[in-house]
Amino acid sequence: MNFVPTPIPGLVVIEPQIWKDERGFFIETYNEKPFSTHGISGFVQDNLSYSHRGVLRGMHAQAGDNAQGKLVRVLRGRVFDVAVDIRKSSSTYGKHFSIILDGENAKSLWIPPGFLHGFLALEDDTLFAYKVTGFYDKSGELGVRWDDPELAIEWPLRHDEFIISAKDRQLPLLKEISNPF
Amino acid sequence: MNFVPTPIPGLVVIEPQIWKDERGFFIETYNEKPFSTHGISGFVQDNLSYSHRGVLRGMHAQAGDNAQGKLVRVLRGRVFDVAVDIRKSSSTYGKHFSIILDGENAKSLWIPPGFLHGFLALEDDTLFAYKVTGFYDKSGELGVRWDDPELAIEWPLRHDEFIISAKDRQLPLLKEISNPF
Ligand SMILES: Cc1cn([C@H]2C[C@H](O)[C@@H](COP(=O)(O)OP(=O)(O)O[C@H]3O[C@@H](C)[C@H](O)[C@@H](O)[C@H]3O)O2)c(=O)[nH]c1=O
Ligand SMILES: Cc1cn([C@H]2C[C@H](O)[C@@H](COP(=O)(O)OP(=O)(O)O[C@H]3O[C@@H](C)[C@H](O)[C@@H](O)[C@H]3O)O2)c(=O)[nH]c1=O
Repeated sequence: MNFVPTPIPGLVVIEPQIWKDERGFFIETYNEKPFSTHGISGFVQDNLSYSHRGVLRGMHAQAGDNAQGKLVRVLRGRVFDVAVDIRKSSSTYGKHFSIILDGENAKSLWIPPGFLHGFLALEDDTLFAYKVTGFYDKSGELGVRWDDPELAIEWPLRHDEFIISAKDRQLPLLKEISNPF
Repeated sequence: MNFVPTPIPGLVVIEPQIWKDERGFFIETYNEKPFSTHGISGFVQDNLSYSHRGVLRGMHAQAGDNAQGKLVRVLRGRVFDVAVDIRKSSSTYGKHFSIILDGENAKSLWIPPGFLHGFLALEDDTLFAYKVTGFYDKSGELGVRWDDPELAIEWPLRHDEFIISAKDRQLPLLKEISNPF
């Protein structure tokens, strides 16, 4: 397992070892030992979402008593995954990091609390799995529009192909929210 | 999340809530609260295996300092999953429980320490995910042949279609192992 830093402090890409044989493959997708050595621990919930091509989920964060760090990965299919630093005292405040996650590269991205997160599914049958360090808590949820010009995310695919929940279409801009981080 | 007992004490089937919408679906596949309420806790590692149709993995257990309870599920595809009770003082010693796990039913099976476990992939592109309560430890691994007549497992598919690792083809019979449980 390799832990690879990104240009945004705290955001880490994890590359697992993939064991292939005539049966298929085997991967340890999470192991408490190397993760806690890298300061990543405390997971309490595992989530799975399934998305059609063009589904965009985001940009979301969970703050408060159940603030969430997220360890995200794709099991099948392919996404354009984005995390935006909204930690007010961060030297990279407002900057984002994007990465292609897919079932082949089997990479994970560790996103500590203090980031907005979202992704666009680039293929049908995309299975997206994530572990979180705080229980789901609607009272701590916040969100920002995927197309907020301040975020300046260059999403792939044509925007008229996007499938976005009613909730996410109504999100405010970053400058309109009261930022708890 | 429903926790459904099976005829073998300790083995539990878990049925999650599946939230469907125009984007696809969302599932909490694991949540520390309801699981620990049901006495299931202490996961330290998450594993993922990918198998072609006909791949049979098993029958395995891990005993010793890192004895493993396993929470197993299928994310995509379909398996015939089997757990054999080898707890020497159990009233159901030697009995097995089998279940079809697939990406649609999204069921999990909780297998405490003291069981042999194995599965047969019934479809190509089968993704099998499991959480374990002990770190991988070769010194604690034990295995029994999938076709041990004492286990009397009625595997589906034709046996000449099976793809089995060299390691698993050489496993002993249950009566030949020294049983640590
Ligand atoms: C996130 C979540 C949702 N749900 C339920 C509530 C809803 O009815 C249904 C769908 O929830 P939504 O918030 O619309 O799912 P979503 O897929 O849009 O939300 C997710 O988007 C990702 C980009 C973020 O990283 C996640 O943290 C999360 O916010 O699932 C839970 O039961 N537990 C959870 O942990
Ligand atoms: C199980 C495991 C394997 N590996 C490596 C060692 C091998 O090179 C490669 C494949 O290992 P194998 O033991 O052949 O995989 P396998 O898929 O045959 O083994 C699994 O079968 C399931 C039925 C059991 O429930 C599991 O507990 C496990 O025994 O993966 C790890 O690094 N960590 C692990 O936790």
